[in-house]
Amino acid sequence: MIRVGIIGQGLVATHFAVGLEKLKNNEIPDHGVPLRNWLPYKYTDIEIVASYDVDESKIGRTVFDIALRDYPGNNIPGSLRDIVIRRGIHLNSMKGLPIKARGREEDKDLQQALLELIDEWKSMKIDVFINVMTTEPVEPIGRLGNLEKRVAEGDVTASQAYAYAVGLYCEKVRSAAFVNAIPSPIANDPAFIEYYRQKKGVVFGDDGSTGATPLTADLLEHMYERNRRVLDIAQFNIGGNTDFLALNLPERNIMKKKTKSGIVEDILGYEAPNYIRPTGYLEPLGDKKFVAMIIEYLSFGEFKDELYIVARINDSPALAGLLVDLVRLGKIALDRETYGTVYEVNAFYMKKPGPPGFKAVSKYYAYTKLLEWAGVKDPRF
Amino acid sequence: MIRVGIIGQGLVATHFAVGLEKLKNNEIPDHGVPLRNWLPYKYTDIEIVASYDVDESKIGRTVFDIALRDYPGNNIPGSLRDIVIRRGIHLNSMKGLPIKARGREEDKDLQQALLELIDEWKSMKIDVFINVMTTEPVEPIGRLGNLEKRVAEGDVTASQAYAYAVGLYCEKVRSAAFVNAIPSPIANDPAFIEYYRQKKGVVFGDDGSTGATPLTADLLEHMYERNRRVLDIAQFNIGGNTDFLALNLPERNIMKKKTKSGIVEDILGYEAPNYIRPTGYLEPLGDKKFVAMIIEYLSFGEFKDELYIVARINDSPALAGLLVDLVRLGKIALDRETYGTVYEVNAFYMKKPGPPGFKAVSKYYAYTKLLEWAGVKDPRF
Amino acid sequence: MIRVGIIGQGLVATHFAVGLEKLKNNEIPDHGVPLRNWLPYKYTDIEIVASYDVDESKIGRTVFDIALRDYPGNNIPGSLRDIVIRRGIHLNSMKGLPIKARGREEDKDLQQALLELIDEWKSMKIDVFINVMTTEPVEPIGRLGNLEKRVAEGDVTASQAYAYAVGLYCEKVRSAAFVNAIPSPIANDPAFIEYYRQKKGVVFGDDGSTGATPLTADLLEHMYERNRRVLDIAQFNIGGNTDFLALNLPERNIMKKKTKSGIVEDILGYEAPNYIRPTGYLEPLGDKKFVAMIIEYLSFGEFKDELYIVARINDSPALAGLLVDLVRLGKIALDRETYGTVYEVNAFYMKKPGPPGFKAVSKYYAYTKLLEWAGVKDPRF
Amino acid sequence: MIRVGIIGQGLVATHFAVGLEKLKNNEIPDHGVPLRNWLPYKYTDIEIVASYDVDESKIGRTVFDIALRDYPGNNIPGSLRDIVIRRGIHLNSMKGLPIKARGREEDKDLQQALLELIDEWKSMKIDVFINVMTTEPVEPIGRLGNLEKRVAEGDVTASQAYAYAVGLYCEKVRSAAFVNAIPSPIANDPAFIEYYRQKKGVVFGDDGSTGATPLTADLLEHMYERNRRVLDIAQFNIGGNTDFLALNLPERNIMKKKTKSGIVEDILGYEAPNYIRPTGYLEPLGDKKFVAMIIEYLSFGEFKDELYIVARINDSPALAGLLVDLVRLGKIALDRETYGTVYEVNAFYMKKPGPPGFKAVSKYYAYTKLLEWAGVKDPRF
Repeated sequence: MIRVGIIGQGLVATHFAVGLEKLKNNEIPDHGVPLRNWLPYKYTDIEIVASYDVDESKIGRTVFDIALRDYPGNNIPGSLRDIVIRRGIHLNSMKGLPIKARGREEDKDLQQALLELIDEWKSMKIDVFINVMTTEPVEPIGRLGNLEKRVAEGDVTASQAYAYAVGLYCEKVRSAAFVNAIPSPIANDPAFIEYYRQKKGVVFGDDGSTGATPLTADLLEHMYERNRRVLDIAQFNIGGNTDFLALNLPERNIMKKKTKSGIVEDILGYEAPNYIRPTGYLEPLGDKKFVAMIIEYLSFGEFKDELYIVARINDSPALAGLLVDLVRLGKIALDRETYGTVYEVNAFYMKKPGPPGFKAVSKYYAYTKLLEWAGVKDPRF
Repeated sequence: MIRVGIIGQGLVATHFAVGLEKLKNNEIPDHGVPLRNWLPYKYTDIEIVASYDVDESKIGRTVFDIALRDYPGNNIPGSLRDIVIRRGIHLNSMKGLPIKARGREEDKDLQQALLELIDEWKSMKIDVFINVMTTEPVEPIGRLGNLEKRVAEGDVTASQAYAYAVGLYCEKVRSAAFVNAIPSPIANDPAFIEYYRQKKGVVFGDDGSTGATPLTADLLEHMYERNRRVLDIAQFNIGGNTDFLALNLPERNIMKKKTKSGIVEDILGYEAPNYIRPTGYLEPLGDKKFVAMIIEYLSFGEFKDELYIVARINDSPALAGLLVDLVRLGKIALDRETYGTVYEVNAFYMKKPGPPGFKAVSKYYAYTKLLEWAGVKDPRF
Repeated sequence: MIRVGIIGQGLVATHFAVGLEKLKNNEIPDHGVPLRNWLPYKYTDIEIVASYDVDESKIGRTVFDIALRDYPGNNIPGSLRDIVIRRGIHLNSMKGLPIKARGREEDKDLQQALLELIDEWKSMKIDVFINVMTTEPVEPIGRLGNLEKRVAEGDVTASQAYAYAVGLYCEKVRSAAFVNAIPSPIANDPAFIEYYRQKKGVVFGDDGSTGATPLTADLLEHMYERNRRVLDIAQFNIGGNTDFLALNLPERNIMKKKTKSGIVEDILGYEAPNYIRPTGYLEPLGDKKFVAMIIEYLSFGEFKDELYIVARINDSPALAGLLVDLVRLGKIALDRETYGTVYEVNAFYMKKPGPPGFKAVSKYYAYTKLLEWAGVKDPRF
Repeated sequence: MIRVGIIGQGLVATHFAVGLEKLKNNEIPDHGVPLRNWLPYKYTDIEIVASYDVDESKIGRTVFDIALRDYPGNNIPGSLRDIVIRRGIHLNSMKGLPIKARGREEDKDLQQALLELIDEWKSMKIDVFINVMTTEPVEPIGRLGNLEKRVAEGDVTASQAYAYAVGLYCEKVRSAAFVNAIPSPIANDPAFIEYYRQKKGVVFGDDGSTGATPLTADLLEHMYERNRRVLDIAQFNIGGNTDFLALNLPERNIMKKKTKSGIVEDILGYEAPNYIRPTGYLEPLGDKKFVAMIIEYLSFGEFKDELYIVARINDSPALAGLLVDLVRLGKIALDRETYGTVYEVNAFYMKKPGPPGFKAVSKYYAYTKLLEWAGVKDPRF
């Protein structure tokens, strides 16, 4: 059994919760779950036991209620009635967004709030936490020595506060995994990597790799393998969900730009000029974003070819499907006592795979390495 | 030194000849040559010593003349003045096309024409033949026992006749490689594979993998690795070069359809409905074809995503760049006495990799295997 | 009141029937109905009173039943239970399609079958017939003098037989309009135009203009108005409905090619090379076809620009929306005693507007002329 | 004869100068010139007599020199050697751009600089000025009463200063036309419209309508005429010329947003959510910008269709071709003594047609009205 706690009951978490229950009930096939039924843990081994949010319209209601309201499908599994959304840590993470939010730390001291959470987690025996809150502006802590002080001063973001608390929980209660699926640098923060190693916890991250970015990585690999010279790449994204709304705020957009443009040089071996970032918010597009891309390259004899890609991608389901793997891989890492972070997992599932210092690789290579790490054999070969 | 004979001085051969000389002169970078300078043989080791065609407007003229007329660039290397285009085997391979063609076999017996060719090749000490003639309608011979009889009766196509003659040359004169870059099944014909093994020759094929087909293969791999359920794929191609003109003739189009649609099931593991074939001829597009593609798939929770690809690809340079590798790999196979065909080479460079019976794999996997076979280390890792 | 008879209860007719009833019930807005509520006849004035088909799985069932089975939406209006689908004329119009079909003429003489139909229409007082059967291979009759003889010999297609019978009905019973929304040349057949004029009937046609063709016409107009030189146009269409299945049969595809490629020269004033035709059948696309287009043109100074269009278009609803206008315009023409055909109506609504001899115009011009003919003022101006 | 003065010898002006001379020499066809040879003034009637810029690398050199350096083609007409680029007004219009610029006003008083310019123009007998300087941040003057004071205080932009000086020139020397092809509100500024009316001058503007915006206008008209409900529109633009570099500066980008998004509501009759603006700068794209667009709409029965457009458009030639018309139309307006601004001209050629208060119309309608105003008959009809 893998007991899961959700941090941020937004659309991704709702797709994860609904999809997982349907999977467990055999109501849907496991499309979008890369490692499907190849892992020792099955879908039925996963149980969501807690959910945290700071949106006043969600706190106190059940995941079932939220799914009824937000999920773009029907047949919401009744089992989601058992998960009541609790008040989480805010630390201004929703600032600037049109959402009425209030965090548990606002009535008391942050430290005290975190200890309270740890107590809750202990009672629920949580194994894996998944962080899917809205993108927040944040810088890495850097040195582990600064972490305690920063928390004491309240000079951390919500994600950092949770990551810190989960570490304490690992130390005091039980080893656990923290899956950071948002851009905040956690698995790329040397402070947190060392912190989890010491606390005997696992951290995966950062920024779940869905949509256009992994596709771009693999297209670049395709170019590299033919020795085509990439002249330029532009990639536009526009969508209508809360994440695009948040990214429309300049200080948050910069978070995405950081996670996205590193791949070009690492895969190609040279710095092809590029413009890769989320571009705008357009409400009627909803969760099904519009992606447009151009790649220009030189072929043999310096003839120029052009590749244009247009895609419509359901944003939240794509990430939710990866979470079904990440939760299981988190538990496997715990079973193996592989503390700190795991590059082989991050490289496939994350846009900015930790730890820092590793080069980006195409997802094809990452997939091969992931299967090796997971001890899985591709049935095609 | 690798001595090369060209079969079919069309646009691909002209791009190959011009580009190769420019490469040797350091006038252009080696874009579009996958194995770049990683192989033991360098670009300067390659020398084109012969060229065959049946188009009366080419025979007797030099590759330089043809390049001046047909190559869409300038600075044609003067060294191409040394290669005079000779009359080759026709066997009606240009039937239906608006080209005045006459083959060497038309004045005499086919057998005699082939022996004449072998004598020429002997004097020029050819190591590698590249077959880049226009797509021809053809069925495999099947059993080696039938090959002699079919040739004796003249019941072969031009490609088959050349492949047969090169085999005799291997036996009588010296081991050589036959690179079949067109759709005719040679490396997929059990008769020819066995024939080359016995004659101590090498055959690579079939149908050089450029443009949209390898891209489709890699996109399908991308889908597979995320366990996305591909619902349908359509891929259109239209261009204005002779190959599109030929493919517009129904009996030739069927050749392409055969080589292209096998990849879907092999890579995905199930038969996704697809419509993949060259679609039409539109003269002003010239050699820069227009490709349009749709891939629809189900993501987690059965949400449908759509991927649209539009590309403009210079057809002939793409294949010409691969030939720079294939010629060198052909020589390496000869050096290693690896007779018959070599799946590891075909899998990356060919749309329909021989020998028959092997499953299609994505080009990513093929690339890894190719590097291993070639003894090359990817400098990124 | 406008009493309507449907010929061919396929997907278009089903969308028309369902949509019309929902419109009358104010359940949906009138999107896709170009002349919206600007005409003297309102949606509630239209009543479908009869439907004919030859598909054994439809005959005897109600339009409600068929909508339940085939309509990709819910809330099928109960009023459709009143329309029972009757056996129509077959004349091999479904040949080659995987549908069990049998026509009324197969048990008796064609003439007798037609007289029987006229009797039915008389009892139902039909004003407007809409022909939305599957595309059939057919040539125009040409001279009116041949029409009687061709019918007597059974040497007509199903559409021609219906068009003939409606003419007789006009003469014997009451003036009526025949809206030919399929490619068969009726409003482009001099025989039928004269026939309707003599019989005091109205014929609109041919081939309802939805999807990519009117868009192409308007894009060409856009090019013309900037004096851009169009170098080439390619347009691909692929879909999964019965019409695409039928068009996949070569003898039917030729029908579409005829209606589509005339527009280029008429609008641009010169013959730009083009490849415009339905391309294939891919079942999972269903009624939502995939269109891909390229237009290349020269700008000032002979610089080349490229325009690529990818579209997903629900095929049947687009035509069904036009029918809501055409039925009303047919009645208006009858009220005005404008017998024969009406170019101003055809020019906007049809791909091949009758009568023959008129040049194609862009849909923008056609729209202006249509509003004038209909006596409607654009509220924007 | 029409004597033309250029303001801003950037890429557009260079394309205009080179293309015009080639046109006059019959070296190129007149593609991209909407009114071609239909006007009473011929191409040979146009003579460029002056050019102004503030880029130190251009001042003192000839248009020929600049064309040799910047024009992406060859055969630069020798007649351009006669036009020496003079120092113009800067007023910080190049601020933030990586260009060394210095204006004539920097050594003296602005008023004095303007009087100097008027003297030069007088000696050259200029009839038409075309303003094609880089996009500048600017607000309209508003009331004519403020214009003098603003100029006296130097509180105007370069475009406003030029527009003011041309007005004085009209009054003191001869009537002239000012074609404002950049986004600065001149023909949309009540102050300038009234000013030109009083001074007996003509002003056309604002923001030459090339590329994606007029195409969007016509696509929206296409939607309107079918009563399709547009749900959303997003349009991205990225390019590598100086204008994109300038627009990348936030205060300049806002200028474009203003001129572009008004069209949606005016044409459709309702405010469809949209995201239409230049998006970024990517140097290797050069002058051939990449445009990506999505339009989603509801068809009959509320079925959703999607239209995706990808285009590659040579930015500067498109505008240069329009200038060949605008110069001639400016002279025609002067001949007719139609002072102030001319909506019929602006509506077709400009993104933000003056005067303010007029609704945007599709370019199709604007074209019809333009032909009427110009007294031209479309030869197709």
